[in-house]
Amino acid sequence: MHDDPGLFECMYSMRAMRRLKPDPVPEAMVERILEAATRAPSGQNTQPWAFLVVTEEAGRRFFGEKYRYWMRKSSGGREPAPDDRSQRAREIRAARHLGDHMPEVPLLILACGKRDWPFAVPEDRRVGHAPPSYGSVYPAVQNLLLACRGLGLGASLTTLHQMFESELHDYFGIPDDYGVVASIPIGFPKGNFGPVRRHPVASKTHYERWASAQ
Amino acid sequence: MHDDPGLFECMYSMRAMRRLKPDPVPEAMVERILEAATRAPSGQNTQPWAFLVVTEEAGRRFFGEKYRYWMRKSSGGREPAPDDRSQRAREIRAARHLGDHMPEVPLLILACGKRDWPFAVPEDRRVGHAPPSYGSVYPAVQNLLLACRGLGLGASLTTLHQMFESELHDYFGIPDDYGVVASIPIGFPKGNFGPVRRHPVASKTHYERWASAQ
Repeated sequence: MHDDPGLFECMYSMRAMRRLKPDPVPEAMVERILEAATRAPSGQNTQPWAFLVVTEEAGRRFFGEKYRYWMRKSSGGREPAPDDRSQRAREIRAARHLGDHMPEVPLLILACGKRDWPFAVPEDRRVGHAPPSYGSVYPAVQNLLLACRGLGLGASLTTLHQMFESELHDYFGIPDDYGVVASIPIGFPKGNFGPVRRHPVASKTHYERWASAQ
Repeated sequence: MHDDPGLFECMYSMRAMRRLKPDPVPEAMVERILEAATRAPSGQNTQPWAFLVVTEEAGRRFFGEKYRYWMRKSSGGREPAPDDRSQRAREIRAARHLGDHMPEVPLLILACGKRDWPFAVPEDRRVGHAPPSYGSVYPAVQNLLLACRGLGLGASLTTLHQMFESELHDYFGIPDDYGVVASIPIGFPKGNFGPVRRHPVASKTHYERWASAQ
């Protein structure tokens, strides 16, 4: 494929990009990342995903203001000390930045999933609806994120919408038989892609049987 | 990166490969796909995943026999008619083939997740444990599958282990505070990679608001 970025390079440098420019994302890029998402596997190839693409200001502002409210509420207004340069402090600051600027992020994609997963919770114990099949939507979400990285777009996977999902259903007309699985703010990044920070593979791997030491 | 396969090419040709050779998968490849998995994003970068790598015959046979039993039971012994050449019939035959040959698949990876996701089901309504955070494990699973594709390994995402998960916990010593999220049989493919079959993107996308026609 012409101009196809490297798979491993993209996976290894796909940082959560939370500082985004307000410039619009070209339509051709939006179509390409959605197409990549829909190439993902799903249980029995049912493809129970649906993508709601929000670029108009009213919708972005509606989502962004709810997001900011819940981000502040759930973090209890806590801020890292100004001289705290730890990884955790930097992540919190970037998350706050994203929350504060969410209404200006040019592209928001809500990855939805059909509520077709009765296994998770028996019907008589279910609160409201059955959940969507996460296993049949998150692979598409990861494809979408990788495609963003491949095209030079910044994105991050957020799930704070769980705090105000019913309001999203009302506002955007999302039917009851779909749940919102992930909300993905996207734009051209202000910073650079770079290596992700992760625990060593060995600390996450067990061979043949689970080792007691982790 | 040297010899990095194309991202989009991999995403677009990552078929579920269910007919696998019994040849062992080289250790260097196993390490590479696990490393790729652990580069994925997770909520607050908690990386709540753990991978159980099974290559010894006893473990593969234990898993494979349970899998075959449940696959036959859940499909009710139904077989497509021999002259049925539809896509669905071919998928069912490939799934049966995988189930029948699971014990001979050379590499099985159980992707596990820490049960750290209290949101999904309120504690007083939970049957047993809280679920793992699917949103923090499936992106790693998709990276792993893409890495297999990139290296020329065949794989598929299966979740039938949900029917016998407690037996897996006992046999492999998986602790109670982890759940098995996906089980991934891996080997060199007998067939060829090729374009995946999916619904058109337009049928899965809504702009600005959910359109009533789907």
